[in-house]
Amino acid sequence: MIDEIKISRAIIDTYSKKLIDHLSVDVAIAGAGPSGMVCAYYLAKKGKKVAIFERKLSVGGGMWGGGIMFNEIVVQAQAKKILDEFGIRSRLWENGYYLADSIEATATLCAQALKAGAAIFNCMSAEDVMIRKNRVCGLVLNWTAVEMARLHVDPITMRASYVVDGTGHDAQIVHIVENKSGIRLKTKTGRAAGEGSMWAEIAEATTVKNTGEVAPGLYVCGMCANAAFGGPRMGPIFGGMLLSGKKAAEELLKKL
Amino acid sequence: MIDEIKISRAIIDTYSKKLIDHLSVDVAIAGAGPSGMVCAYYLAKKGKKVAIFERKLSVGGGMWGGGIMFNEIVVQAQAKKILDEFGIRSRLWENGYYLADSIEATATLCAQALKAGAAIFNCMSAEDVMIRKNRVCGLVLNWTAVEMARLHVDPITMRASYVVDGTGHDAQIVHIVENKSGIRLKTKTGRAAGEGSMWAEIAEATTVKNTGEVAPGLYVCGMCANAAFGGPRMGPIFGGMLLSGKKAAEELLKKL
Amino acid sequence: MIDEIKISRAIIDTYSKKLIDHLSVDVAIAGAGPSGMVCAYYLAKKGKKVAIFERKLSVGGGMWGGGIMFNEIVVQAQAKKILDEFGIRSRLWENGYYLADSIEATATLCAQALKAGAAIFNCMSAEDVMIRKNRVCGLVLNWTAVEMARLHVDPITMRASYVVDGTGHDAQIVHIVENKSGIRLKTKTGRAAGEGSMWAEIAEATTVKNTGEVAPGLYVCGMCANAAFGGPRMGPIFGGMLLSGKKAAEELLKKL
Amino acid sequence: MIDEIKISRAIIDTYSKKLIDHLSVDVAIAGAGPSGMVCAYYLAKKGKKVAIFERKLSVGGGMWGGGIMFNEIVVQAQAKKILDEFGIRSRLWENGYYLADSIEATATLCAQALKAGAAIFNCMSAEDVMIRKNRVCGLVLNWTAVEMARLHVDPITMRASYVVDGTGHDAQIVHIVENKSGIRLKTKTGRAAGEGSMWAEIAEATTVKNTGEVAPGLYVCGMCANAAFGGPRMGPIFGGMLLSGKKAAEELLKKL
Amino acid sequence: MIDEIKISRAIIDTYSKKLIDHLSVDVAIAGAGPSGMVCAYYLAKKGKKVAIFERKLSVGGGMWGGGIMFNEIVVQAQAKKILDEFGIRSRLWENGYYLADSIEATATLCAQALKAGAAIFNCMSAEDVMIRKNRVCGLVLNWTAVEMARLHVDPITMRASYVVDGTGHDAQIVHIVENKSGIRLKTKTGRAAGEGSMWAEIAEATTVKNTGEVAPGLYVCGMCANAAFGGPRMGPIFGGMLLSGKKAAEELLKKL
Amino acid sequence: MIDEIKISRAIIDTYSKKLIDHLSVDVAIAGAGPSGMVCAYYLAKKGKKVAIFERKLSVGGGMWGGGIMFNEIVVQAQAKKILDEFGIRSRLWENGYYLADSIEATATLCAQALKAGAAIFNCMSAEDVMIRKNRVCGLVLNWTAVEMARLHVDPITMRASYVVDGTGHDAQIVHIVENKSGIRLKTKTGRAAGEGSMWAEIAEATTVKNTGEVAPGLYVCGMCANAAFGGPRMGPIFGGMLLSGKKAAEELLKKL
Amino acid sequence: MIDEIKISRAIIDTYSKKLIDHLSVDVAIAGAGPSGMVCAYYLAKKGKKVAIFERKLSVGGGMWGGGIMFNEIVVQAQAKKILDEFGIRSRLWENGYYLADSIEATATLCAQALKAGAAIFNCMSAEDVMIRKNRVCGLVLNWTAVEMARLHVDPITMRASYVVDGTGHDAQIVHIVENKSGIRLKTKTGRAAGEGSMWAEIAEATTVKNTGEVAPGLYVCGMCANAAFGGPRMGPIFGGMLLSGKKAAEELLKKL
Amino acid sequence: MIDEIKISRAIIDTYSKKLIDHLSVDVAIAGAGPSGMVCAYYLAKKGKKVAIFERKLSVGGGMWGGGIMFNEIVVQAQAKKILDEFGIRSRLWENGYYLADSIEATATLCAQALKAGAAIFNCMSAEDVMIRKNRVCGLVLNWTAVEMARLHVDPITMRASYVVDGTGHDAQIVHIVENKSGIRLKTKTGRAAGEGSMWAEIAEATTVKNTGEVAPGLYVCGMCANAAFGGPRMGPIFGGMLLSGKKAAEELLKKL
Repeated sequence: MIDEIKISRAIIDTYSKKLIDHLSVDVAIAGAGPSGMVCAYYLAKKGKKVAIFERKLSVGGGMWGGGIMFNEIVVQAQAKKILDEFGIRSRLWENGYYLADSIEATATLCAQALKAGAAIFNCMSAEDVMIRKNRVCGLVLNWTAVEMARLHVDPITMRASYVVDGTGHDAQIVHIVENKSGIRLKTKTGRAAGEGSMWAEIAEATTVKNTGEVAPGLYVCGMCANAAFGGPRMGPIFGGMLLSGKKAAEELLKKL
Repeated sequence: MIDEIKISRAIIDTYSKKLIDHLSVDVAIAGAGPSGMVCAYYLAKKGKKVAIFERKLSVGGGMWGGGIMFNEIVVQAQAKKILDEFGIRSRLWENGYYLADSIEATATLCAQALKAGAAIFNCMSAEDVMIRKNRVCGLVLNWTAVEMARLHVDPITMRASYVVDGTGHDAQIVHIVENKSGIRLKTKTGRAAGEGSMWAEIAEATTVKNTGEVAPGLYVCGMCANAAFGGPRMGPIFGGMLLSGKKAAEELLKKL
Repeated sequence: MIDEIKISRAIIDTYSKKLIDHLSVDVAIAGAGPSGMVCAYYLAKKGKKVAIFERKLSVGGGMWGGGIMFNEIVVQAQAKKILDEFGIRSRLWENGYYLADSIEATATLCAQALKAGAAIFNCMSAEDVMIRKNRVCGLVLNWTAVEMARLHVDPITMRASYVVDGTGHDAQIVHIVENKSGIRLKTKTGRAAGEGSMWAEIAEATTVKNTGEVAPGLYVCGMCANAAFGGPRMGPIFGGMLLSGKKAAEELLKKL
Repeated sequence: MIDEIKISRAIIDTYSKKLIDHLSVDVAIAGAGPSGMVCAYYLAKKGKKVAIFERKLSVGGGMWGGGIMFNEIVVQAQAKKILDEFGIRSRLWENGYYLADSIEATATLCAQALKAGAAIFNCMSAEDVMIRKNRVCGLVLNWTAVEMARLHVDPITMRASYVVDGTGHDAQIVHIVENKSGIRLKTKTGRAAGEGSMWAEIAEATTVKNTGEVAPGLYVCGMCANAAFGGPRMGPIFGGMLLSGKKAAEELLKKL
Repeated sequence: MIDEIKISRAIIDTYSKKLIDHLSVDVAIAGAGPSGMVCAYYLAKKGKKVAIFERKLSVGGGMWGGGIMFNEIVVQAQAKKILDEFGIRSRLWENGYYLADSIEATATLCAQALKAGAAIFNCMSAEDVMIRKNRVCGLVLNWTAVEMARLHVDPITMRASYVVDGTGHDAQIVHIVENKSGIRLKTKTGRAAGEGSMWAEIAEATTVKNTGEVAPGLYVCGMCANAAFGGPRMGPIFGGMLLSGKKAAEELLKKL
Repeated sequence: MIDEIKISRAIIDTYSKKLIDHLSVDVAIAGAGPSGMVCAYYLAKKGKKVAIFERKLSVGGGMWGGGIMFNEIVVQAQAKKILDEFGIRSRLWENGYYLADSIEATATLCAQALKAGAAIFNCMSAEDVMIRKNRVCGLVLNWTAVEMARLHVDPITMRASYVVDGTGHDAQIVHIVENKSGIRLKTKTGRAAGEGSMWAEIAEATTVKNTGEVAPGLYVCGMCANAAFGGPRMGPIFGGMLLSGKKAAEELLKKL
Repeated sequence: MIDEIKISRAIIDTYSKKLIDHLSVDVAIAGAGPSGMVCAYYLAKKGKKVAIFERKLSVGGGMWGGGIMFNEIVVQAQAKKILDEFGIRSRLWENGYYLADSIEATATLCAQALKAGAAIFNCMSAEDVMIRKNRVCGLVLNWTAVEMARLHVDPITMRASYVVDGTGHDAQIVHIVENKSGIRLKTKTGRAAGEGSMWAEIAEATTVKNTGEVAPGLYVCGMCANAAFGGPRMGPIFGGMLLSGKKAAEELLKKL
Repeated sequence: MIDEIKISRAIIDTYSKKLIDHLSVDVAIAGAGPSGMVCAYYLAKKGKKVAIFERKLSVGGGMWGGGIMFNEIVVQAQAKKILDEFGIRSRLWENGYYLADSIEATATLCAQALKAGAAIFNCMSAEDVMIRKNRVCGLVLNWTAVEMARLHVDPITMRASYVVDGTGHDAQIVHIVENKSGIRLKTKTGRAAGEGSMWAEIAEATTVKNTGEVAPGLYVCGMCANAAFGGPRMGPIFGGMLLSGKKAAEELLKKL
């Protein structure tokens, strides 16, 4: 016999313990887009405690829609092995380009990150960071629905050895640090550089190059890396995104 | 060297061919929720040509958020083997209930349905059905964004041997058939019965029992089955949904 | 030294246990308006386990604003002793009418209901009832913010020996039972009668008279009583509301 | 017999006299949040004439929702005696932290402030201040509903020996003075410093330290104190807020 | 020297007394459109106590804009003497039609109604009627801004020997009586007949003919007369409106 | 030298004379969609006075977007000669289908209808019809912007020997006549039948067959013909639409 | 017999001639608020050709609502004679203050301005000014409804010897000139100074003092005078507004 | 027999090939307003490959509505020959001004540009430009509906030897280059100068004069030319717009 109250209790109890358990982690990632999920996968595989906080109900960011809602993505040869490692099918288009179904790619990145041991908390936004002695040391979280419903409700906080901003173009965490913390960013001007117009070739390279620490305790990956350190915009080609997520994980593993 | 134009061409060419290729299928499923994706998986595994059309940018419907955004779901013992077949991890809560991470469950259902051979077209809504001689024989499709932007743009059409309504509570296709086609539904009153208040135990049973053909050429599965044939509402327990998707596939395989 | 993580943990742990503890209660009240809070107070004082679920962030319903935002309310002599019992100051206006500050009245009703032992869960809406064998036996709950943000997220459920609809004009629970459960209301027509135009004198009397069981397991109090059983509308006079809340508690105490 | 006209007259007459009576007060407080209500309580207890003007229909600001709608708040040991004085129940969590029900806390703060003799005018916004010779000497008020309905209607004015800005993060009165009055704020830069990222320990201390006069005739308390003089943001811990409200009252009592 | 506090007090005191003074009147008119203002003028000229309650900030309803924002109106010969009596300039267009500036007409109708002794309360909506023994005997009023801001605030009530519905097409008071009071309208079907398509000649005649008592205590005038008793719609010709307002006043004067 | 005042005068003078000149026409067409413009073209070519009133700023209705914003349309062989007569280029796709650029088709239909002598008044909506003795004899017009801005402004009227409803699915004029005029439609039930689900083959035939008089003085063409008399829905194939517009013109020419 | 077509023609013909006639005037006033209407009255009385362009459907700006929707206004002794000249009734409140009904005041100002010979074009916004050789020489006008409906439609232009900005706080014309024309304002900084906080005494004096030419060809009156040249804000006291309108007229009469 | 699937396939196949074919063109024009369509016409007539990308469903920009929705436009003598070449009828108003129907003008410009060989892609917005070595070399495109529906979907890119900004006042492409590319504009300040107030005579001249290259690879025409290089605003006179489009084509033909 099915007992709704037991079901409710199971969900409340399990979730609240999972949330409490992740109030203190090795790495907190803002944004469950492709680069953030790749980063989480490689960190979790090495046994690190990783939590991703995602604003939306669903994960995946801008990857579901391919280009102009035509749900295919393109990946360069050098990133194909990441697709292979995750088990995402791809087919060669022409020299050096591989095509993959954008929905399969998004869902698989997510499933594998979780199976590697990362935790994802969806419907949650980071509205601020926690600061100690000029170092980012955690996120200040609230339900996105609270913000959408314009309710006046206080957030909670969580602590992380490192925070990764994987919020894409918006670079939400970078901008919070820039505007509220009084910490100077490790960019040329000390401020976020912003993305330039599209030049996919350069962008793919700079996305990976710009992946790294942008403020004490704060890393950037994916499109957020170019938004922070400057670089042109990418098109619907996702190699740089995946490689950036992997690089961020590798850099963090050296530190942790 | 990366060439944006080649990337654009690859995406447009591949997608338009995929779309044209799926203008005629064995089974067209409206809604990429849990039951629709399970149904697609079992049909595709048997070599049937299946296309899911999903309104939203992301798939998964109401499964991402668990209960009240606490991202855990509960599944009964009899449905656990479906979780196992898809590779979704679950843990025993107490006698007969298993808990799974709602995000892992959603992403994995999607990834496996695609890998089994189904195609998913996201951002697309069925605004009507195609009718021939009192039988549903296809869907009339448009971009959801066209509807959201309130643009006046005509749809296209696709043909299917069978259509499955997997749109949940809304029972969108059932209501279109009920209100526009002049076809009498195979329900007691000839009209959609609607869901009743919550009684999970009964609901879990009726969801599976109600899964089947509701009009010539049109099947219902998941919560849509209760919305069509009547039955109480379920809570955040997903066993009936998964079993319903599987049953719909089994029934359709007998016909195809 | 203040530790934000301990604070977060304290809040999550305490709240989730409070919520789990109230998944099964003697009386669940929908709506923290004046009559609901008075009802909760008298039930809790007698040791009953009572939970109020309130849609809004704040409690009090329409009482904060007095009449046309002029924050004073009027109460008749026979209800003054309820004001006195709660400790709400009032002053005689003229024969038989007492005036009270509407803000003091609202805040004090709330504070006293809680101190008597009731629990209030704000930001939560009852989107359905739980039904067993034609009897209302609990509420189906979700965050109001989820609904306001139009997210597709499943609810949870809670069980109560009796449910009280204290949602005022809207009579939300009564309408859910009427439209979804298949249960006939104990009104003349079997359906909600609705409020008539204003006739304060009659309304004050019928509000109390109509307070009672409207469907197996479901009670109505306050303005909801007239909305269910029929009767004219009240003005900014609150005696009937308070007396109705008290009567509902007294009737329920006989049953529990 | 109930006479609706007498009720209407009682409300209009009483409210208009109350409003006229408070057109000239000792202290006008903008915002009925926790710190403003504590401040009002201590001032009124000493016989000062105090009026709080609150934008919303209900009082309490961000306190109702605890953290992320989990309705519990945390208070440090040093602020517990304020809870005790108001009669708000609290329980020890672990060394130095007390937990209280956020709804009970909010309602009780409000009820006690009123019983101490303060007046609260809800639904009213301060859209400007009144200035005489470079000193803030009153508020310019309008119905919030007028602003929400975007009606073009003139405000009225009221005079106060001192104005307290208790509008939290927004620091509405401080920003009006900063931008419209031509008066230099008593901050380092002469302008509002704004809140920094979260650092609860420091924030709790600076909130109290920053409480005081920010411009001739204008005091700040609660989160507004940090928004004006600078300091990090607090989490869902309310000790500093309560102590700040008390300090503001003490400082003002020396002046009045 | 100008004292803002005296100005505020003057406004609050004068308005609250005016409002209290008009809680009991001979005739309460809902809607300050042309026919309502003409009706008020002729009643006030005979010494009757008349109050108009107008939803909007400004009076005049649909008269300001002439036809399609071309601010001219047309009046037939038989209604020209009403223009003359009010002092509204008009010029002969061709046989039997007079043209007037729609802004001059609106402003002058309003100014003259007030000077004749009527009172207008703008920004106030009648959300219900007051009923005694199957007779309309007053209005239930609230600020329109409260409704526009979706605040939950109770109304006040006022009493009138007769109520006139001058709300035009909407026939707001008629519909309230029809739907909430249980009183049968004095129309053929007992319900509001609604306006038909445009036929100006017939409409001009029926508007006047339909002016009268539609329920015990409730009169209709202007376009509301056709909406209640049935008749075609008028165009931008205002003779019938003005004559209807005058007729309503004449009928009411016989009763008072 | 350019004189802005002369330009303004030229526009006001020319337009107001054009509008006055078209207050009385042979045929008034509601909606400048493909069938309405084809109808206007064939009427104007025979010297009839025709005015089209179009809600939107631009003409063309749903034709600009082809199918799902892929801007191509399909026309059957029998309608290709209409494309040829208008000078719209088309290319044979396969047996019996011709493809045309949807933008070229829309713009050319419009340009040719005007050059044939029809007048188009854009930004104008028919909010009612004019009725005399149970016959539709004109339209009641207002700026669409007035309606969009929710301004309360009266319409003007125009007279026509015949009115054509070319408003597509919405069948706006048909519904106005059905609901407001008291005239029985010449359909089986006396009411609008509504469109059924898609069946292009049947729809193409019924669209032409259903073209004709639906009420005394009122004709339907295009998709409106099926909405009025019943029939399935069409897809992005436009032959029936064009043939229907031509048939409506031919029928009307016999009457005029 | 009433002929709708003649009515439509009368309105279109009369309005279009009135509009053409006012494409060239002595003075164009933006905004039909109190000061603008007083200014128009005194200019028109001296035989000047004056046109007021008002954004809204109704005239009167912020005067209808008195203070906080309490529809009474206060006027000082020195401005009472303007009330008397217009025929607006007022009553002495206490030394030096007169009270008037805000609705009577607004309607009468409007009626008298028109009767003196001014023309008012409502529903029209000035979206730009016309410039010749660094001098404002006219307005660029469009329907406000076009802007509200976000339609992309070009404006028309009109010429005036002088333009008066009577748009109150917004100072719309002043800001257009400041931001688009390249003309330096005749203020201390060459830019609009903006209003300060409220100080009614000073404000009443500066409103009159600041009334005058702010750029070649452009005058300011009413609250716009303080917004342009700087000065505190007024409360619901209207003497300065009326006196400013009169002064603007007097200054312009010297120039014309 | 009509086959909906063949129709769908025809549309998808033809459109996707047309889109792929235009991923590389001689000239890409942003905005299908009058000047952009004239430019496209003259380029296409000379055999150049031209694609116009238009945000809206319909083409024509602000030309459909004439002045204030009075659908007539004015053109000077020197531009009349462009009207003649396109086959747009015009009539002499007075010395030097010609009037044309604004709808006929818009539709005909569009039809002729297409017939000359240009392609128009409607419903598509340029959200960025493609940059190579400080030269604009293409557009980054997305469905406008994606943006309107606020979906997070990546764009595609197309390449052009030259890009023309024909987006009018908004100068969308110019602002993208200015703000994102790091390229200095060829204007006096290196930034877009913006339009000034209206001075039609000067504006007509500067629009043509300013037509040209504003950044390497980027041309401006129509109102965008003044927005980029500075100049006053035009009224509803379209000569300069047409001449500018022609000049842009002529300049580009020299380069290609």
